[in-house]
Amino acid sequence: MKSAVILLSGGLDSSTLLHYVKSELDFKPLHALTIHYGQKHVRETACAVAQARAAGVEEHRQIDLTFFGELVATASALTDPATPVPALATLAPDQLDQPPTYVPNRNMLFLALAAAYAEARGIADVFYGAQIQDRYGYWDCTAEFLDRMNTVLGLNRRQPIVLHAPFIMMRKSEILKIGLDLGVNYAETWSCYRGEAKPCGVCPSCVERQAAFEALKIADPAAGRMTDAGCLMPAPENRKAPN
Amino acid sequence: MKSAVILLSGGLDSSTLLHYVKSELDFKPLHALTIHYGQKHVRETACAVAQARAAGVEEHRQIDLTFFGELVATASALTDPATPVPALATLAPDQLDQPPTYVPNRNMLFLALAAAYAEARGIADVFYGAQIQDRYGYWDCTAEFLDRMNTVLGLNRRQPIVLHAPFIMMRKSEILKIGLDLGVNYAETWSCYRGEAKPCGVCPSCVERQAAFEALKIADPAAGRMTDAGCLMPAPENRKAPN
Repeated sequence: MKSAVILLSGGLDSSTLLHYVKSELDFKPLHALTIHYGQKHVRETACAVAQARAAGVEEHRQIDLTFFGELVATASALTDPATPVPALATLAPDQLDQPPTYVPNRNMLFLALAAAYAEARGIADVFYGAQIQDRYGYWDCTAEFLDRMNTVLGLNRRQPIVLHAPFIMMRKSEILKIGLDLGVNYAETWSCYRGEAKPCGVCPSCVERQAAFEALKIADPAAGRMTDAGCLMPAPENRKAPN
Repeated sequence: MKSAVILLSGGLDSSTLLHYVKSELDFKPLHALTIHYGQKHVRETACAVAQARAAGVEEHRQIDLTFFGELVATASALTDPATPVPALATLAPDQLDQPPTYVPNRNMLFLALAAAYAEARGIADVFYGAQIQDRYGYWDCTAEFLDRMNTVLGLNRRQPIVLHAPFIMMRKSEILKIGLDLGVNYAETWSCYRGEAKPCGVCPSCVERQAAFEALKIADPAAGRMTDAGCLMPAPENRKAPN
């Protein structure tokens, strides 16, 4: 069996990925990394704990990178207290390419960290949950980004690392379909960028999630009652970064 | 004037780089980043403070990444308490390619962080002090590594970042020559990987430093009396990671 490292946010995509890597790709044991980077929706990390437990990972490391949110704060609506997370419908067409919810170079940073963690343990395979967004995009969730990152990491002669993003050409509804077939409990995933008591329903992440459930004509078990989900009870303690 | 971000460890190469970027390349204002990653020679960061002050940087951010040293600890002699930093002379030929002092994927991580910091401030240029080691090597200090990292960062449509390593094809003696011409105070730089009270004189970093000074037929102002250097007095406070 081959080990793998998975970047696990606790959202729909990475939670599905975790179970997919375990059940469909047969990697074992699994190591999950969850990063607290000062995101407003840090409550997603409580769902990561629930998903890691459900998948029986060997190690789930939570990493305190909250300084990062402060370092880049004003550049992203996900980290800047003074910039509200926008409703997707209010974004101008030229904002859709790289919306205000983009966090500067976050994915390269997280993948670099995951690759270091993997290398130190002799693990060659790192997974992250990039997907094709239907209505907006991030440059660091593209197949070109992944390919070029792999050309860098391939230079490491002692321990070449390969980054994988098996969902990178999939829409969220396709990912959801895979996860439902695998029995993923979506009540214990968190998508809303605003990170309030309940999903807002209008931010880019909520809109994409709703569209995925609607495309499959099923109800989102987390919609409207997220704070009742097991992974978010009790809330205050679970939301603290343990590292 | 164009701003730049410089990864500043407090060693000979990055300290020279800082003054070179300021005086020869005319970037202004300068932003320096110094990272505490659990390195045994964390005393180098006190020299970074002295150099940043001497160069009059606009902002010098010290970042606490000490968790990183623990995350990858056993994989590097620079971070593992149980693995002594070896003398260069004791390394087997097959260890010279990627010696035990290599830290897993550290440079990609640091450059990703520096690029994020730069992007958040609208700065396009990031510098780091990679050079050609004479007697050993790291894959993440090569021109190929730099080129490929730049092909990744070039995908960022909102704020393309360019990584620069002007010393990447230079030997340490050439770098030292540049710095001496610029008046860099090498008494306030730290190279020894062991990070004890005085430079050990035998670790890979000490040996390369000594060879550089010998090649120029001058004495190292820091040799044997590093703890008297201004940047390391008083020691305990200066060595603490402030962030």
